[in-house]
Amino acid sequence: MTQLVRVQSFSVSSDGFGSGEGQSLERPFGSLDPADLHAWAFATASWVGRREPGGSRGLDDYFSRDFSNGIGAEIMGRNKFGPQRGPWQDLSWQGWWGDDPPFHTPVFVLTHHLRPSFSLTDTTFHFLDASPEEALATAKQAANGGDVRIGGGVATVREFLAAGLVDVLHIAVVPITAGRGERLWDSPDELLDRYHLEKVPSVSGVVHHLFWRD
Amino acid sequence: MTQLVRVQSFSVSSDGFGSGEGQSLERPFGSLDPADLHAWAFATASWVGRREPGGSRGLDDYFSRDFSNGIGAEIMGRNKFGPQRGPWQDLSWQGWWGDDPPFHTPVFVLTHHLRPSFSLTDTTFHFLDASPEEALATAKQAANGGDVRIGGGVATVREFLAAGLVDVLHIAVVPITAGRGERLWDSPDELLDRYHLEKVPSVSGVVHHLFWRD
Repeated sequence: MTQLVRVQSFSVSSDGFGSGEGQSLERPFGSLDPADLHAWAFATASWVGRREPGGSRGLDDYFSRDFSNGIGAEIMGRNKFGPQRGPWQDLSWQGWWGDDPPFHTPVFVLTHHLRPSFSLTDTTFHFLDASPEEALATAKQAANGGDVRIGGGVATVREFLAAGLVDVLHIAVVPITAGRGERLWDSPDELLDRYHLEKVPSVSGVVHHLFWRD
Repeated sequence: MTQLVRVQSFSVSSDGFGSGEGQSLERPFGSLDPADLHAWAFATASWVGRREPGGSRGLDDYFSRDFSNGIGAEIMGRNKFGPQRGPWQDLSWQGWWGDDPPFHTPVFVLTHHLRPSFSLTDTTFHFLDASPEEALATAKQAANGGDVRIGGGVATVREFLAAGLVDVLHIAVVPITAGRGERLWDSPDELLDRYHLEKVPSVSGVVHHLFWRD
């Protein structure tokens, strides 16, 4: 089996923004409200954060439950781990993801500022100062045959796209406009020189964009 | 996590037939050509029978790769195992599924004619003379926390539906007409008294029908 490099369940506004402006501890997505951006996923039965029964099992749920399917490791940018910039001030703060992070695999956080690895339940965070190629080689080895998810944020997805390292993407285009922030694209057509694209509308209003290359 | 009872990647013609007439060793689907019925799945990268690279990773592939996702056991009718009727004549014939069956879990074959269990790679076939409720209790225990797939054929899916035992169904409605054979339904609307339904058209021409109940 080929090990794929996948972007999964990554949500952007209809004008292409994956995060707002002014990220802070209280607002991981800055001026964008994550509840707006991810409402489609929160409504599904298989959303990784769901602690109670209920939720839809329609089309959106297929994407929610594919989030972890076959994934052996994740790579994320530092801003997906936390809002700090520069050297770490407080190692007791262990990221935005709570006591039981939703990854359940090794996670490689790209940063120029290293710190020791640590585990929360079955998620282990490692910190790497590495190029996309180097980080991917490390993550593929740790994935034990599984695929590697490029978890975001926007800058990290763009960096791996620019390096030609992403095999498949699932981008959920959400019917809200952001106007400012971090932009994944001006238009999904930007990727058509390298990827096949299927657009699949959902009753939730989201249009799932599925990209893959030969 | 709830253990779900799932029908997955089950294909029917636009007039509702899941199999043709006159099943035989050479024609497991009788008068229906399985290549027509399952072309959408065969074209995907994640089809369980794929031995070579290639294949689409669009919408249809999400359904192909959900086939095994979270499944811990399958229940099938005898006619999905083989074309024989009555007592087994030749125990050396081990079913239609080859040396490496695509199930990779325990499989419970419903039949009035018992025979010893056997394994082919990581699939083990067990033979049960049991009601749907009894078979499901056995399969849930064997599934080790995973979901149970009702694998078909048509009569078996109908039997489990009639007993109210199915939680979710993914039925692929294929743009061919069969005219005769074994019919799953006259119309998918027959299930609307008990299930939510989303219909998701694919570029392949298939309309994926997703059913779930509260």
